[in-house]
Amino acid sequence: MSKNTTAATKSTNIQWHDGKVTAEKRIQLMGQKGATLWFTGLSGSGKSTIAVEVELALLEKDKVAYRLDGDNIRHGLNRNLGFSPEDRTENIRRIGEVTKLFADAGVISLCSFISPYKADRDEVRSIHLEHGIPFIEVYVDCPLAEAEKRDPKGFYKKARSGEIKGFTGIDAPYEAPNDMEIHLRTDQLSLTEECGKIINFLSENSYI
Amino acid sequence: MSKNTTAATKSTNIQWHDGKVTAEKRIQLMGQKGATLWFTGLSGSGKSTIAVEVELALLEKDKVAYRLDGDNIRHGLNRNLGFSPEDRTENIRRIGEVTKLFADAGVISLCSFISPYKADRDEVRSIHLEHGIPFIEVYVDCPLAEAEKRDPKGFYKKARSGEIKGFTGIDAPYEAPNDMEIHLRTDQLSLTEECGKIINFLSENSYI
Repeated sequence: MSKNTTAATKSTNIQWHDGKVTAEKRIQLMGQKGATLWFTGLSGSGKSTIAVEVELALLEKDKVAYRLDGDNIRHGLNRNLGFSPEDRTENIRRIGEVTKLFADAGVISLCSFISPYKADRDEVRSIHLEHGIPFIEVYVDCPLAEAEKRDPKGFYKKARSGEIKGFTGIDAPYEAPNDMEIHLRTDQLSLTEECGKIINFLSENSYI
Repeated sequence: MSKNTTAATKSTNIQWHDGKVTAEKRIQLMGQKGATLWFTGLSGSGKSTIAVEVELALLEKDKVAYRLDGDNIRHGLNRNLGFSPEDRTENIRRIGEVTKLFADAGVISLCSFISPYKADRDEVRSIHLEHGIPFIEVYVDCPLAEAEKRDPKGFYKKARSGEIKGFTGIDAPYEAPNDMEIHLRTDQLSLTEECGKIINFLSENSYI
C-alpha cells in the first residue's frame, strides 16, 4: 500500500472507507477491465468449448478470467430454483448479480448459457448497463443439424424420442440474437479462429 | 494457449471440455490461491476498514482480491431477502456460494459481515470445506464501548434510543468466535499492524 495512505489512516485508526480502490485504480493495478462475455447458442454449439479456450488464453496472458455455466451456477447458487417463469427470472437475475460482482472485481467472466430467449438476454444486459458494466454478447451460431449430429450429452436423441420435453431447437424455440457484439459462425471458423476473434475484440476495446 | 492443446482441439472441433484449467494450473498461472477471508465483529469494529487496506495491499502486490459486504450483496444478489430465519439462512447460503465461485476463480475474497451467530459462520465454513476451499475466519475484536464510541453510521445511538431493534451488541447477542484463524485485538494493534498480520498469514500459508 502507498505510504501516504497508510500514514493518513494509521493516524486515526477510525477513518471509514466506502472503498479505497476505485474502478480506475483497479483497472490500472490489474491491467485489465472487468466485463461479462455472454455466450449464447444451441446445446452442442460449442459455447463451453470456446469459453474454455478463451479462459486459458487469457490466464496465459496474465489476465484474470473465470467461466460461469450450468455446472457451477445451477448446481450451486441457483440449485433451489426450477424452471417456472418466476424461477427462470430469478435464475437470470442472480446470474446477472454474480457477473456484476465479478466485473466489479476486475475479472472477465465467461458465461455459457443456452439462454434461448431474447428477453432473458436483454434482461442480463440491462442489469449490466444500469451499473456501467460491459456486456459482450457472443452468438455461437451453429446449425441445428450440426449441433444435433454432435449431441455431446445425448440430449438431442432424448428430445427427439420425447424423453426430454421442451428442448431448445427441437420442441422449444431458440431466438437468435441480432444485436450481438460478436458473431461466431462455427461452420466457417475453427476453434482457434473463434478464440482469436474474441481475444482481438477484448484487446481492440481495451478490456485487456 | 499451448500449441499442443490447440492442435488437438482444432483437429476435431468437437472435443468437449469440462474445464481445461485445473485448480493447480490456475494457482500456477495466477501466482495465488483462491480463499475466503471472513471478517466477523461488531458494527463499528473496523471490519470494512481493515478489509479495504488488505484489498489494496494485495492488489499492489499484483494479487487479485475483492471485498464482499452488505453494500454489494444485500443491495444486489440478496436484495429479495429479509431477516426472517429462512431468509437469514438463504442469505448465508448465497454468500457462501458466491465466495466459493470467487475462490474457484483464484480470487481472494474479503467478506465483511457482522455475522453475530456462530452457527451461521460455521455454515459458511462448512460450505467451503465441503468443496475444499480455504476459509479463514478473522475476528475483528473491538470492545463494545469502543465500537459504540465510534458509531460511524449512528446505529448504536438509534439502538440505545430504541429506534433500531435487535441490534448486535445492544439488544441482540454477538457470539464471539473461539476457533478463528486470525484474531485482531483492535485495542492493541494499529490498522497497519492488523493489515500486516493478515498479509503475513496469507503469505506464510502460501495463498500468495
